[in-house]
Amino acid sequence: MPQEDDNTVYVGSKPAMSYVLAVVTQFDEGHEQVHVKARGKAISRAVDVAEIVKSRFIEEATVEDISIGTDQIETDEGDEINVSSIQVDLSQ
Amino acid sequence: MPQEDDNTVYVGSKPAMSYVLAVVTQFDEGHEQVHVKARGKAISRAVDVAEIVKSRFIEEATVEDISIGTDQIETDEGDEINVSSIQVDLSQ
Repeated sequence: MPQEDDNTVYVGSKPAMSYVLAVVTQFDEGHEQVHVKARGKAISRAVDVAEIVKSRFIEEATVEDISIGTDQIETDEGDEINVSSIQVDLSQ
Repeated sequence: MPQEDDNTVYVGSKPAMSYVLAVVTQFDEGHEQVHVKARGKAISRAVDVAEIVKSRFIEEATVEDISIGTDQIETDEGDEINVSSIQVDLSQ
C-alpha cells in the first residue's frame, strides 16, 4: 500500500489501480477528502487515479481543487533540480 | 509551432520548451488567458509547461483554473479507449 499521510495518497510508479484502491480505502475509512499527490511523470497517473476513482468506484466523489507547483529535489549526485507537482483534492 | 485554437496550446510529445514558447507567443499577441491542454502521458508535460511559463517567462502569470476529465478516443484498430485529460488556464 502506497505510503500515506492520513488522507494523502502519493502516486508513484506502480500501476494506477494500486493507488485507486488506496484512495477508495481512505474514503471507506471515513475520510471526507483525499489528497492525491504526484511529481514529475507520475502526474499523468495521478490524474488517471482521480478519474478512475470518480468514474468507476465512487461516483459521487468530486474534484474539490487541483493545484500545481514546482518542488526542488536533490538528485543522487547532490544536484538540485526542479520538478513539477500536482495535488488533486477529491471529496465525497 | 503546436496547433492552436486561438488561445489554446495542445501539449504533445515535443520538448516542453516548444510549448512554453507557444504559450508566451499567445500572451505576446495580446491574449489575457491561454489554455494549456493535454491528454494521457503528456499531462505531466502540460504541468511542466505551465510551471516554466510562470517561473521563468511571465512571472505575473497565474493559474486561473485547472480541470481534469476523461476523453474517449478511437485507436487505430477502431477500439474506444478512455484517456485522462487536463486543462490549465493561465492568465496574465
